[in-house]
Amino acid sequence: MRVAVDAMGGDYGPAVTVEGALEAVREFGLEVVLVGERDVINRELERLGSPETGVTVVDAPESIGMGEGLFASWRKRKSSIRVGMLLVKNGQADAFVSVGNTAAVVAVSQKVLGPLGGVERPALALLVPTLAGSTLLVDVGANADCRPRHLEQFAVMGRIFMESVLGRTSPRVGLMSIGEERGKGNDLVRAAHELLVHSPLNFIGNVEGKDIYSGKADVIVSDGFTGNVALKASEGIVESFLSIARRDIMRNFPARLGFFLMRRQLKRLFRRIDYSQYGGAHLLGLNGVCIIGHGRSSSEAVKNAVRMAREYVRHRVTDKIRSEVGRLDRPVEGAGA
Amino acid sequence: MRVAVDAMGGDYGPAVTVEGALEAVREFGLEVVLVGERDVINRELERLGSPETGVTVVDAPESIGMGEGLFASWRKRKSSIRVGMLLVKNGQADAFVSVGNTAAVVAVSQKVLGPLGGVERPALALLVPTLAGSTLLVDVGANADCRPRHLEQFAVMGRIFMESVLGRTSPRVGLMSIGEERGKGNDLVRAAHELLVHSPLNFIGNVEGKDIYSGKADVIVSDGFTGNVALKASEGIVESFLSIARRDIMRNFPARLGFFLMRRQLKRLFRRIDYSQYGGAHLLGLNGVCIIGHGRSSSEAVKNAVRMAREYVRHRVTDKIRSEVGRLDRPVEGAGA
Repeated sequence: MRVAVDAMGGDYGPAVTVEGALEAVREFGLEVVLVGERDVINRELERLGSPETGVTVVDAPESIGMGEGLFASWRKRKSSIRVGMLLVKNGQADAFVSVGNTAAVVAVSQKVLGPLGGVERPALALLVPTLAGSTLLVDVGANADCRPRHLEQFAVMGRIFMESVLGRTSPRVGLMSIGEERGKGNDLVRAAHELLVHSPLNFIGNVEGKDIYSGKADVIVSDGFTGNVALKASEGIVESFLSIARRDIMRNFPARLGFFLMRRQLKRLFRRIDYSQYGGAHLLGLNGVCIIGHGRSSSEAVKNAVRMAREYVRHRVTDKIRSEVGRLDRPVEGAGA
Repeated sequence: MRVAVDAMGGDYGPAVTVEGALEAVREFGLEVVLVGERDVINRELERLGSPETGVTVVDAPESIGMGEGLFASWRKRKSSIRVGMLLVKNGQADAFVSVGNTAAVVAVSQKVLGPLGGVERPALALLVPTLAGSTLLVDVGANADCRPRHLEQFAVMGRIFMESVLGRTSPRVGLMSIGEERGKGNDLVRAAHELLVHSPLNFIGNVEGKDIYSGKADVIVSDGFTGNVALKASEGIVESFLSIARRDIMRNFPARLGFFLMRRQLKRLFRRIDYSQYGGAHLLGLNGVCIIGHGRSSSEAVKNAVRMAREYVRHRVTDKIRSEVGRLDRPVEGAGA
């Protein structure tokens, strides 16, 4: 198996991405293709001591910065993101992994790889750590405006992912809403609810924002706007909680000592809730495998994203989505789709 | 000033609501009307020692439970929520405060009090604690489906609230989106952005989910679906974080000792981020004053909700909203409204 890795992406750039890719080669025995500025990558390979086999470099002289707008995705025809994606398209790689600019990766993927036959909208799915294990949230930002039928497809794709890659049997699918009773929510959710109730999925009904972290569902479907805002709000509250805590605790000696005594447990806790460690987000329903890690990813997170790509390929998630989404077709009858 | 308090609402019922109302009478020198089952309320008044003046009781033999659906709001014509709201409508009280079933309070308020002239949709606004102080999030659940013009009205009403009640000069208004650049977001947000850019508000552009807690804006506007999911997701991550922390820390002796040393700071921190303490949510744009506290409210939170109602009345927020929203009228020209 050969995984193309965007060496230029992420907040920390090649130093971290190349290191993570090499760890993946050593640990998982797969090949990686490092895509980006050849000189920069070679310098990192030299510094880190490249293994004899399993690593190749493909030059991509341009790169899209973390803060750059969508325009850059179209203009930079030789970006590491586009070149890496073309390797997948042309069969020279089995999957593409980037910890770069998420919006750019999503945009380029739609253009270069495109959706699988039958899939109306590929969706960005994120595995979120919960009390019980993990929940897949679909969509977290690829589709700001959705129709009921899109949410139904997200549910099917999410189910396939959780079943194939995480081995969950009959994954529980929840629909993000504001209130659990049928009929609660916005127009989109009410229409999607009807589709899901009549689907063969293990649909548990509406869930609420808090259930992203409660473990009540294996898959939670949502339009990409709501999913993204909810995730970022959660990130935000944890960050501001920690800033205030740091300030308050460092001011007071006993509290500082207390912090010192708890530091091991706290560190483990933060690793647990930090989903940048969890192997990244998946573009479900794309005609090719594409994983997007968090920009803040460490080399370990890059390695985990490569592992996720391997699992995705190994369990033939793409083939399964193609065949199952095809089966969804049915008379539209007022679904609003 | 006379504030009607729903004595039957909240997770803890009359024991807490009556106590909070009495504290408000003593501390703020206003009158309260306790609305609910007369016998139950009188029993609480006896237990707590009612002050000589400032407290009256209005009987409302029915109450709407925290878990009851909307149907109960229509069926129970003598619920404490409806009876309390009628006191406001008939001029027998200046404001209504409930820590009861939010959906029921919103639904009954629309029916009994109705929107102010010019306001298309009253909105539920919540003051959220941030790093810098507090941010008003509008809407957090009253309007699941919104049009661009509704978001514009939410922005104007939020600005008036922050200016009048919190004394912020020229409050910064942000629009909840997924990406900060103009053009990012869903169809609703893009259209609302255009309206806000051309408004006289101090519009700082799009903000993201994390900015609810960053203090970047004084007012953040959002449709009620997204606002509600974002808030509940934040509550959820904090709760699951704390559950895991408790479990991990209690298992380990030094960590337990550490926790003991930090407990004062932690307690203060939780009070700070717990918005149930902050005086509740406001129904902006209603033809009358109505404050909804968190169901989990303590007696102190009930007292704070009464204080908020007093501020709202004292600063004539309702009059200001009526006059300013009226001025918004303009040719619609493709606003999608």
